[in-house]
Amino acid sequence: MMEIAYYDGQFVNINEKIVAIQDRGHQFGDGIYEVVRIYNGKPFLLDEHLDRLEQSASSIHLALEYTREKLKDLIYEGIKRSGLKEAEVYIQITRGVAPRHHLYPKNTSPMLSMAVKPPRVIPNEKRKHGIKVILQDDERWANCYIKSLNLLPNVMAKQKAFENGADEAILLRKSWITEGSSSNVFAIKHGTLYTPPATKRILNGITRMAIIKIAENLGIPYQEVEITSGFLIHAEEVFITSTSIELLPVVQVDDSVIGDGKPGPISKQLLNAYKNLYDE
Amino acid sequence: MMEIAYYDGQFVNINEKIVAIQDRGHQFGDGIYEVVRIYNGKPFLLDEHLDRLEQSASSIHLALEYTREKLKDLIYEGIKRSGLKEAEVYIQITRGVAPRHHLYPKNTSPMLSMAVKPPRVIPNEKRKHGIKVILQDDERWANCYIKSLNLLPNVMAKQKAFENGADEAILLRKSWITEGSSSNVFAIKHGTLYTPPATKRILNGITRMAIIKIAENLGIPYQEVEITSGFLIHAEEVFITSTSIELLPVVQVDDSVIGDGKPGPISKQLLNAYKNLYDE
Repeated sequence: MMEIAYYDGQFVNINEKIVAIQDRGHQFGDGIYEVVRIYNGKPFLLDEHLDRLEQSASSIHLALEYTREKLKDLIYEGIKRSGLKEAEVYIQITRGVAPRHHLYPKNTSPMLSMAVKPPRVIPNEKRKHGIKVILQDDERWANCYIKSLNLLPNVMAKQKAFENGADEAILLRKSWITEGSSSNVFAIKHGTLYTPPATKRILNGITRMAIIKIAENLGIPYQEVEITSGFLIHAEEVFITSTSIELLPVVQVDDSVIGDGKPGPISKQLLNAYKNLYDE
Repeated sequence: MMEIAYYDGQFVNINEKIVAIQDRGHQFGDGIYEVVRIYNGKPFLLDEHLDRLEQSASSIHLALEYTREKLKDLIYEGIKRSGLKEAEVYIQITRGVAPRHHLYPKNTSPMLSMAVKPPRVIPNEKRKHGIKVILQDDERWANCYIKSLNLLPNVMAKQKAFENGADEAILLRKSWITEGSSSNVFAIKHGTLYTPPATKRILNGITRMAIIKIAENLGIPYQEVEITSGFLIHAEEVFITSTSIELLPVVQVDDSVIGDGKPGPISKQLLNAYKNLYDE
């Protein structure tokens, strides 16, 4: 079992230096990515991730030049070579390698890189007792629905959370919640599940969509509506979702304790149902 | 004479594949950069560029780990190895190479890459007759004063300009001009030079600062104030500045012709004075 990477048609050790200096990923962040979770050797919600990869590509006018089948073959080949049963596949496609100019290069093919690694481990304590988050201004660009490589604001927001003893930064446009620095946000009030709608201001998480579908199947009422930080603080339950963390209960927002300060029953019910989707 | 590149302590051919997959430049755009123009073998306004590099680093909490002297030595060594008298030095510093997590990695050194290449050539016709620009919404993040690698919105704005037969996109926050996708914007009205102030919304160009200083020395009145697109369209002269293009007259903004549709006298005067700074 090993961490493995892929660039320009070759599988390599993840620490190998293999990327061209003039890859537009390296010089402009001019590309898109996905992270896919592998459970028991099988990529979870792979078509949903590849749908979104294609949407991201289209949004930045990048012609993928990879069929769905080819992308799947590569991902399966990466998993096989890694020997990992539990893994995360990181896949990134940039506008290719070309002399540095802002304009899209002509006659250049997109460049795909990939990494297959063991999944991120969330400490049991955080799963069990929930996490603290902080609120921060959303300083990102206008098109956060694109899963692009321009992640500096997300990186800085996450770091600020960490330095304040928190695990995630929940971002605000004025007083409206958008999402976390690498997660979507949900709140439960009077038994109804609330999450901000999938506008251009948020990345419509694959896990987010799965949770909404689960809520529907379980008969939990839900609303995709704009919510304020005040609404969040006074919710009965709050949680965040992403491919890596699945669903993590939030028990504190800045100095405000959520509900009784413990993960709530609906959060647990949704997480269990989510796990059932891959754990059969 | 050749194009030359540098990464992780080595000078290499610019097409060599030498960057680590997990360089945070490649995966997050988590870094900063500068472009320095070399005239007759000498870097122009080098200290100003290195000042800004240090400011950008500080703004993203990146400890440079390169002294001013070391940076200069590297740049001079690159110029020497390239054999170029007229060149552009591109220098980029990322938060280093580390397993992919949003949080700033610990115990990781920043990674410097550099490229030395012949300067961009602006066709004489554009220099002589001026260029067309288009107006576009500024969709970038809140901290454009940082010269970061998160350039996707700039890339997309420039491309849109190109596809509309223009050379640059002038960006607007509501109806206020910020800057071009890779340039600063100036307008002249009643003999006074106007340019938007260096807030967090714009990158304070080294050429921008030089032009303001020149205006001061020449006794041309100037104001750093917010200007609208309406003001721009009704200006007597408009021009854009950057290290690569120096000063380029703008003779058309969308469908509006500026002044008499020809580069104006103050633009020419400022460009000549700018050239005199290096051409001695």
